[in-house]
Amino acid sequence: MYELGVVYRNIRRADSDLAGGLGAFGTATVHEAIGRMGLMKPYMRPIYARAQAWGTAVTVLLHPGDNWMLHVVAEQIRHGDIVVAAVTADCNDGYFGDLLATSFKARGAQGLIIDAGVRDVRVLTEMKFPVWSKAISAKGTVKATLGSVNIPVVCGGALVTPGDIIVADDDGVVVVPAASAQKAFEIAAAREANEGEKRAKLAAGVLGLDMYNMREPLQKAGLKYID
Amino acid sequence: MYELGVVYRNIRRADSDLAGGLGAFGTATVHEAIGRMGLMKPYMRPIYARAQAWGTAVTVLLHPGDNWMLHVVAEQIRHGDIVVAAVTADCNDGYFGDLLATSFKARGAQGLIIDAGVRDVRVLTEMKFPVWSKAISAKGTVKATLGSVNIPVVCGGALVTPGDIIVADDDGVVVVPAASAQKAFEIAAAREANEGEKRAKLAAGVLGLDMYNMREPLQKAGLKYID
Amino acid sequence: MYELGVVYRNIRRADSDLAGGLGAFGTATVHEAIGRMGLMKPYMRPIYARAQAWGTAVTVLLHPGDNWMLHVVAEQIRHGDIVVAAVTADCNDGYFGDLLATSFKARGAQGLIIDAGVRDVRVLTEMKFPVWSKAISAKGTVKATLGSVNIPVVCGGALVTPGDIIVADDDGVVVVPAASAQKAFEIAAAREANEGEKRAKLAAGVLGLDMYNMREPLQKAGLKYID
Amino acid sequence: MYELGVVYRNIRRADSDLAGGLGAFGTATVHEAIGRMGLMKPYMRPIYARAQAWGTAVTVLLHPGDNWMLHVVAEQIRHGDIVVAAVTADCNDGYFGDLLATSFKARGAQGLIIDAGVRDVRVLTEMKFPVWSKAISAKGTVKATLGSVNIPVVCGGALVTPGDIIVADDDGVVVVPAASAQKAFEIAAAREANEGEKRAKLAAGVLGLDMYNMREPLQKAGLKYID
Amino acid sequence: MYELGVVYRNIRRADSDLAGGLGAFGTATVHEAIGRMGLMKPYMRPIYARAQAWGTAVTVLLHPGDNWMLHVVAEQIRHGDIVVAAVTADCNDGYFGDLLATSFKARGAQGLIIDAGVRDVRVLTEMKFPVWSKAISAKGTVKATLGSVNIPVVCGGALVTPGDIIVADDDGVVVVPAASAQKAFEIAAAREANEGEKRAKLAAGVLGLDMYNMREPLQKAGLKYID
Amino acid sequence: MYELGVVYRNIRRADSDLAGGLGAFGTATVHEAIGRMGLMKPYMRPIYARAQAWGTAVTVLLHPGDNWMLHVVAEQIRHGDIVVAAVTADCNDGYFGDLLATSFKARGAQGLIIDAGVRDVRVLTEMKFPVWSKAISAKGTVKATLGSVNIPVVCGGALVTPGDIIVADDDGVVVVPAASAQKAFEIAAAREANEGEKRAKLAAGVLGLDMYNMREPLQKAGLKYID
Repeated sequence: MYELGVVYRNIRRADSDLAGGLGAFGTATVHEAIGRMGLMKPYMRPIYARAQAWGTAVTVLLHPGDNWMLHVVAEQIRHGDIVVAAVTADCNDGYFGDLLATSFKARGAQGLIIDAGVRDVRVLTEMKFPVWSKAISAKGTVKATLGSVNIPVVCGGALVTPGDIIVADDDGVVVVPAASAQKAFEIAAAREANEGEKRAKLAAGVLGLDMYNMREPLQKAGLKYID
Repeated sequence: MYELGVVYRNIRRADSDLAGGLGAFGTATVHEAIGRMGLMKPYMRPIYARAQAWGTAVTVLLHPGDNWMLHVVAEQIRHGDIVVAAVTADCNDGYFGDLLATSFKARGAQGLIIDAGVRDVRVLTEMKFPVWSKAISAKGTVKATLGSVNIPVVCGGALVTPGDIIVADDDGVVVVPAASAQKAFEIAAAREANEGEKRAKLAAGVLGLDMYNMREPLQKAGLKYID
Repeated sequence: MYELGVVYRNIRRADSDLAGGLGAFGTATVHEAIGRMGLMKPYMRPIYARAQAWGTAVTVLLHPGDNWMLHVVAEQIRHGDIVVAAVTADCNDGYFGDLLATSFKARGAQGLIIDAGVRDVRVLTEMKFPVWSKAISAKGTVKATLGSVNIPVVCGGALVTPGDIIVADDDGVVVVPAASAQKAFEIAAAREANEGEKRAKLAAGVLGLDMYNMREPLQKAGLKYID
Repeated sequence: MYELGVVYRNIRRADSDLAGGLGAFGTATVHEAIGRMGLMKPYMRPIYARAQAWGTAVTVLLHPGDNWMLHVVAEQIRHGDIVVAAVTADCNDGYFGDLLATSFKARGAQGLIIDAGVRDVRVLTEMKFPVWSKAISAKGTVKATLGSVNIPVVCGGALVTPGDIIVADDDGVVVVPAASAQKAFEIAAAREANEGEKRAKLAAGVLGLDMYNMREPLQKAGLKYID
Repeated sequence: MYELGVVYRNIRRADSDLAGGLGAFGTATVHEAIGRMGLMKPYMRPIYARAQAWGTAVTVLLHPGDNWMLHVVAEQIRHGDIVVAAVTADCNDGYFGDLLATSFKARGAQGLIIDAGVRDVRVLTEMKFPVWSKAISAKGTVKATLGSVNIPVVCGGALVTPGDIIVADDDGVVVVPAASAQKAFEIAAAREANEGEKRAKLAAGVLGLDMYNMREPLQKAGLKYID
Repeated sequence: MYELGVVYRNIRRADSDLAGGLGAFGTATVHEAIGRMGLMKPYMRPIYARAQAWGTAVTVLLHPGDNWMLHVVAEQIRHGDIVVAAVTADCNDGYFGDLLATSFKARGAQGLIIDAGVRDVRVLTEMKFPVWSKAISAKGTVKATLGSVNIPVVCGGALVTPGDIIVADDDGVVVVPAASAQKAFEIAAAREANEGEKRAKLAAGVLGLDMYNMREPLQKAGLKYID
């Protein structure tokens, strides 16, 4: 994992249709479908409400206060990618702003996930370029030290391998390993299939206690009702 | 306080008209009216801007990573209640989403106050089901361990007894003990009575220094002006 | 710095045209123009999205849980000022609400920067009175202890001298010393001059690697591409 | 709970022998014995390593930056008590130092649990007066606003009723309601009874998997071993 | 990475002599030797001062509030291993205490690195069983949900692959991939070789400015001295 | 304040006898003597228990992840100085270790106050070189960007002007402006004069309520005793 100064140009991306399919389900459903794992920590927040994005991960490893490699990763973006940026130590500096967003968007990026800060959030919001970050900060960065592009990175506490599928929305950011994507899609689809029916029942006043047959296990576990 | 596996079905709720009356004043005024107490910690934030809710507290105690009891509490909700959910240890998992919100709403809940995380915030926002929480997270939970319903709980650092009045808005969440509600309403009403007049004076450029007769006490305290 | 119980009435304000000029550039550009310094910590956040303000600093030093001096500072506000409020120890209480905002606005204040909490954010938002704060809290304060007005203060980790220029927006709050304002304006203007051209190139797909001539220095630093 | 300006002189203390008995078991065992509840949040830390204390709670409610009521509570201390101090809002100021510790000790206090800051920790350590606090800070406080003594308070996220038993050590602080103390003691004693035997087995290399008969439930849950 | 309910029994451990050699250098030197990477976040702290440990990683993935898998991992420990425990979401509960420590020690474990809480720290300290953790808490856990053993995990923000070398001391915890261990040792040894000489010069008053020949690059960078 | 790339060689240091005199009183007393101001935030902690230091401030401004200027400041240290290091943005990296400590000590430094991280804490502890820092971290830094030496800096939330007196101990770090040092000493001395007598009275069981004549003001404020 500790390769510095390296750019992998050819990575194996997960299927883009699967990315779209998973993205439509949203993070909560996808996270359930892959066994309640792969979720970044909840400090990773979208810079505007109702942001949504999905795509295949292009990764970049940065140093504290240094955004040089964001220019390097731009060249590796293909349409449908999401850039995932990690830093070697905690840093809230504003690594990314409207110029880089213009470049990323032109290259086909669907968004940015960065375990650090961003700036120009007003313009990014107007551009509808979604970013999930740890902080918002006007603090600028230098361009002095090499990191790497398309190596596995830890971002927001989750391991991201280049080519993995990323799904991000108001609820957070989830990482689906490329090899699990097909199965995750099937599980998520099955899970969603009867959600409408469940919702209708609950809206009609049916209790989850009854719909999910919880009364018996609750009683067995010892639950007591007191009037 | 340490009863586990117990559901109290009959609680004495504060008067619902008082809940409505206090709710109309908002948290800042109510908090002043009850002696600057009963406020939850400021980490309890609404999931969308301009959220507002008030009602009588139905409480539930949960375990870390386990939302089983949210299904149990649903049955105890009456129209005009607000569910207040505490956890036995710090946890940011997403205990509550759109299906539970559909159920809570159908039962007449006015909102949820939870000292943990929630998910599906986009749908909750569209549903206009207000939630004040410590975190937003797609992380799912299990259903394995009993907690309790309608026992006194500590939520967001404040003690909540079932039946207390809860007032929540953009400024936070305040708890009014049922026994203090009538008096709190009277104090709040008196406090609000001349706010319009004060606001008009201040808008006209009158200084609080003069309107509140602060110049003399400030001088006595030793304040010096230097030109 | 440790003067207590003192109000300086005559401070030397930076040029208001410069404040307006810098404000139009926004915090990120201004922060770059003054050498990547003078930025408050990123925990200072606007209470509503797209807030923007600039002006000359009128400062006030407060004690934990005591907002008495906010009434004193109101009298010292002139049109075009921004009030900068520091506290002698960490405190999230709600020092400032809609009545004080009405007064500040009537005096000509452009906004408030406070290293503590505020309340009545719904009304402040409707009034379009912008505030950058550390917290939102309904918690009220007392009026018991003297602080000072128009002494140098540390707010959000940045030193603010009365009369300095403050620029604040979604990206944070930056302080420009009065003596550096003219030069900062010139640097910022130069920096902005060719941003449109750069943005057009990047939007057309030109890479920053090429536009900024980074390929050679990256190669010299040892960057390796692997296919 | 919201009584201000009140001192309850006669509280019903839990049995002091039970306090001693529970104290000898330590917080982890006591916490288990009362159903994994009643624990203060882990930010409550002892000011020196190997601190240990137990006793009956005398409570005090303070305001931010104001330690006046600590002098009032001193008079209510009886030999064997532990003072539990809560604050109406988050505050890290140094409310308590060596003079108050001298006074508390002379009155028979076994220690202090304070949801705020303390100072003079070098002297407190030399005096062997144990304190569990949220912070250490030299910041002094004023004496201006009334709180209350011996009302129920929320400290470190736990409800403390006057007379409850407090057990505190390196692992944290646990609150045992007076009414649960006898039963808690019995459960804790039973729990400890065979700990020595267990420890000997584990030290000899026996696995918990075997000692606790976990292999079958693990297999049923689906655990797979891969060579 | 998302395998649940799986125990890998045969992992390829890095050379134990290399672990010992790297351990003797300490985390700061090893972290430099592997390119300033692989360091866990600084919130991972030893439970007692001067703790030191090194060994080969045996990993375990846990769920919030559930320590069942710690009993499973115990069986996989070989002499010279360090257990590295990750959790699927943030949790400060006390997963590990003196009984498990007795068992781990009997199996040959050199210590525990856990991205959660521990308890019984007084006894662990007396046993000299070193633990690096995120928190200390008496809060107990349940045994209900399967995790995995010896899969790659993210702990303290760092990726740990089973068999990697772990070096931990007062300065934190560093992970050395098994494949990099030999080279890391050589670089660290070279780095340490002339530290004694440097230390002697500095102790004699020679400046780093001169010893490292920094004056010229500083001047070139534009440093100005003002008398 | 925003001078970069500048080293002021001649600063006016406060009187060293006053530094020694104030240091002997400790931070809590000094902080009171200067009006409860000038205290750094409580996150600034000593790296070992019972650390104590005082001296005249030599300041240095650093960039995130870059410790180059620590070598520059070393040359400006005179016997009796304390180095105060600020960073332009939040950073926990380990800027300072045993080699720099050896150099600082040889130059006569009494300690280091750094708003960032340090490493080699075991050796620093053995050397008895006291450091107050925000973090402990093995993370190394680069030497690439100029900061400044002996300009006013904000460290731990407090303004430090070169030559100010610094007093640091277990309770934190306090800054005494050079111009206030003589008066601060006199106030502190007067304050300490009768502490022994007070302590003796309190140890004999006299209450602060009586010793400080608080009963009447408490009664006037409305305090009620309930039996």
